[in-house]
Amino acid sequence: MASGTEIEQLINLLAKLPGLGPRSARRAALQLIKKKEALLLPLADAMAEAAEKVISCSICGNVDTVDPCAICASPRRDKSIICVVEEVGDLWALERSGVMGGLYHVLGGTLSALDGIGPDDLNVAGLVLRSEARQVKEVILAMNATVDGQTTAHYITDRVEHAEVKVTRLAHGVPVGGELDYLDDGTLAAALKARREF
Amino acid sequence: MASGTEIEQLINLLAKLPGLGPRSARRAALQLIKKKEALLLPLADAMAEAAEKVISCSICGNVDTVDPCAICASPRRDKSIICVVEEVGDLWALERSGVMGGLYHVLGGTLSALDGIGPDDLNVAGLVLRSEARQVKEVILAMNATVDGQTTAHYITDRVEHAEVKVTRLAHGVPVGGELDYLDDGTLAAALKARREF
Repeated sequence: MASGTEIEQLINLLAKLPGLGPRSARRAALQLIKKKEALLLPLADAMAEAAEKVISCSICGNVDTVDPCAICASPRRDKSIICVVEEVGDLWALERSGVMGGLYHVLGGTLSALDGIGPDDLNVAGLVLRSEARQVKEVILAMNATVDGQTTAHYITDRVEHAEVKVTRLAHGVPVGGELDYLDDGTLAAALKARREF
Repeated sequence: MASGTEIEQLINLLAKLPGLGPRSARRAALQLIKKKEALLLPLADAMAEAAEKVISCSICGNVDTVDPCAICASPRRDKSIICVVEEVGDLWALERSGVMGGLYHVLGGTLSALDGIGPDDLNVAGLVLRSEARQVKEVILAMNATVDGQTTAHYITDRVEHAEVKVTRLAHGVPVGGELDYLDDGTLAAALKARREF
């Protein structure tokens, strides 16, 4: 196909990125080669730098260039709240919303019998330890609203029970901007059940 | 959003790739950081290597690590046929089809009055020169079936007229596997006009 092993290698690796298939990987590779100075070289540098500097926070599992991460180290964060998420991407999503003033804890996935992922494969022990600290008052379970996510939420509720913290979860309901007609039955039922006075 | 300037920089650059928006760039960056050894480092290396080694073929405009490119240098190629394409991606598409035994010529775009792209911005002069060589018998115009592509095809036909080569273009018609009901009127009209005995 593409002449030159270097180009083929680049395409094969690009195709492994989520969101890029073989076709878009080829387009991306061509774009990179076309914009060598503006895109290819800076991206190669950015990747090498990220590979060298980015590490996992030993407290919460966030990725950052410092350990503890900027969130764990921030004096402006409410250290009485720990928000438990599945992946770093979920943490970023919550940070973009700008309403989480507390700390995070990244599990690194969910329990999954099908994929053979048990509690030892997730960072649960670290969470239990953190929730036992006297300053922690609330653990917010912000797992995805999937079967695996909710199974994990129940498991974590059991594990932190003895720590005498309030365990909460995100509300289920109609997404802001969502239309009822397009919502699934489960969401509608949850939204109706959790209705509030207007 | 993402803590760490290195991560933000990586996301910003990834988002410039075709097919990746800000959201998928974040997912790709996370994937890269998660698979540092298997993906991030090899990709950084592949990019650095491509930046260093990949060059444009001075004859046809293809990208390769050698000049002339592997296609131009191949003794098995039919040097009497030059297939003119807009971009390197089109050349790759034709190579994948495996039916082009001739050489290529990459214009680097199309004429476009709207975008201010004239003949001097494309590699037309090189094509005219090549088509004057005695061994060249046919120039196949394989531009996209867009207005700009067809304008460019007409322009090139005029330019290579004196070279006494046969100028052909790709057939228009029903795509293989295509259903008539979903085809536009222009394609149907072209397919009907160019009908052949069965």
